[in-house]
Amino acid sequence: MWCCIRETGDEDVRFKVLYCGICHSDLHCVKNEWGNSTYPMVPGHEIVGVVTEVGCKVKKFKVGDKVGVGCMVGACHSCDSCENNLENYCPKMLLTYNSPYYDGTNTYGGYSDHMVISERYVVRIPDSLPLDAAAPLLCAGITTYSPLRYYGLDKPGMNVGVKQEAIEQLGADSFLVSTDPDQMQAAMGTLDGIIDTVSATHPLLPLLGLLKCNGKLVLLGVPEKPFELPAFPLILGRKMVGGSGIGGMKETQEMIDFAAEHNVTPFIEVVPMDYLNTAMQRLAKADVKYRFVLDIGNTLKAD
Amino acid sequence: MWCCIRETGDEDVRFKVLYCGICHSDLHCVKNEWGNSTYPMVPGHEIVGVVTEVGCKVKKFKVGDKVGVGCMVGACHSCDSCENNLENYCPKMLLTYNSPYYDGTNTYGGYSDHMVISERYVVRIPDSLPLDAAAPLLCAGITTYSPLRYYGLDKPGMNVGVKQEAIEQLGADSFLVSTDPDQMQAAMGTLDGIIDTVSATHPLLPLLGLLKCNGKLVLLGVPEKPFELPAFPLILGRKMVGGSGIGGMKETQEMIDFAAEHNVTPFIEVVPMDYLNTAMQRLAKADVKYRFVLDIGNTLKAD
Repeated sequence: MWCCIRETGDEDVRFKVLYCGICHSDLHCVKNEWGNSTYPMVPGHEIVGVVTEVGCKVKKFKVGDKVGVGCMVGACHSCDSCENNLENYCPKMLLTYNSPYYDGTNTYGGYSDHMVISERYVVRIPDSLPLDAAAPLLCAGITTYSPLRYYGLDKPGMNVGVKQEAIEQLGADSFLVSTDPDQMQAAMGTLDGIIDTVSATHPLLPLLGLLKCNGKLVLLGVPEKPFELPAFPLILGRKMVGGSGIGGMKETQEMIDFAAEHNVTPFIEVVPMDYLNTAMQRLAKADVKYRFVLDIGNTLKAD
Repeated sequence: MWCCIRETGDEDVRFKVLYCGICHSDLHCVKNEWGNSTYPMVPGHEIVGVVTEVGCKVKKFKVGDKVGVGCMVGACHSCDSCENNLENYCPKMLLTYNSPYYDGTNTYGGYSDHMVISERYVVRIPDSLPLDAAAPLLCAGITTYSPLRYYGLDKPGMNVGVKQEAIEQLGADSFLVSTDPDQMQAAMGTLDGIIDTVSATHPLLPLLGLLKCNGKLVLLGVPEKPFELPAFPLILGRKMVGGSGIGGMKETQEMIDFAAEHNVTPFIEVVPMDYLNTAMQRLAKADVKYRFVLDIGNTLKAD
């Protein structure tokens, strides 16, 4: 059994968790693949639920509201990043799970029955969004949305390669197999930007070759080893390699509202809680299209 | 003896060379350190002189005008880059020397008595600029000016590190020794951008640490080996690593005019032609502050 261990503070929202996406980060953390795991651990940072209690100073939410929580639950609120609605880049940003909380305990994530979170880190889920499919937007969604905006790749006419996921079913204009030399050669110099979601080690040179002059390669994944970065392609085409990590709370709400307005939702496979270990094993083999979402509301039973 | 081997075409400007800077690229090419040298070679791409003849279709220049030529003398004039005044990123860009010219010969650079160049690749040197000190602006000047503009690092209040050259004599606000760990630690997270002019292999991680969130590291030099690029610093601070190579002709003229208006000139050591080999040896040891300029007008004698 999982359960919430925190009281509801004045600025906190308590909500019953209904759905939680299974992110590849959860697998990394469960297996301590980044070397910073603390156990016991409750993973989960793509969390959707319904508000059951609000603190006396909570202004944005009331009981019954549909809400979501992503990768972070705290920050300093005084640094430049925080003041610019970029809590995600605050040096003191607090992760939703596996992070030391102010009271000395660890934070626990969304594979649980209830969450208690400061309202600043809670977003509203519009009625038109299905709650299960909304869950992955809280991490995967904002992580890809934010760099498209920041790096100016969201304008009409831009050619952007979203590697490995750009298949016809998702509405992409075309699809390029990065391991096919002929396809890669034919596509040289055609892209304004690439959102690189791959976490495994891979060469950057072929990707830089795909970019037009002034093109941007944005890394979202962190392979174990550093990349090899040749200088000539950057200099000869004024190209750049940038990074981006999730997004601030203001932008996360903006992304959720955009998804609702334009009916953009991920392909998901909803599974019950007792399927979790199997789901993790399948995820490790990339055997899911494209996101497992735990049906916590209907299947998490108190022992 | 060096001399010009080309006729003056309809759109060409012929000028007597007065001064030519010695760029580190000249040393690379003379020694074939980039593996693409063709001999005989006449180096030099920081060239200043006075017009002696103009073709019948030349519109911008007349005999007696003071002019400059930088790193390139031709491009396709039909690609996206050319149409956006970025001839420097044209795939068919023709270098001022050591490049196969349209007639099958090689291009020869500015260590020579005369040059014949299409007027598109000639800039005007304002009267207020000293001709000797204007020479290095044609390569070193535009190479640093262009990325400051493109990467948005030219705004008031921006902290930009121009490595290795930011000493008090040049009007920099402060100076940081990148090999001093204490200084580097104290400067972590303070810079909006870094213009990295170093051509030798060096680690990027300490430089990325100097950047603020959203900071930009711009590479201008090409070490022999690829850089090691760790992903976490890029992602955790939304930082980027970009490149930049010289600048287009329009921007080169803009930079020259800016330098003239604000009286910005490099520190130079003017030397006669027969000092060239000694200058090259000293340059290889970084024994020059900061640019040798050949006094060609007064010291190049026809044998």
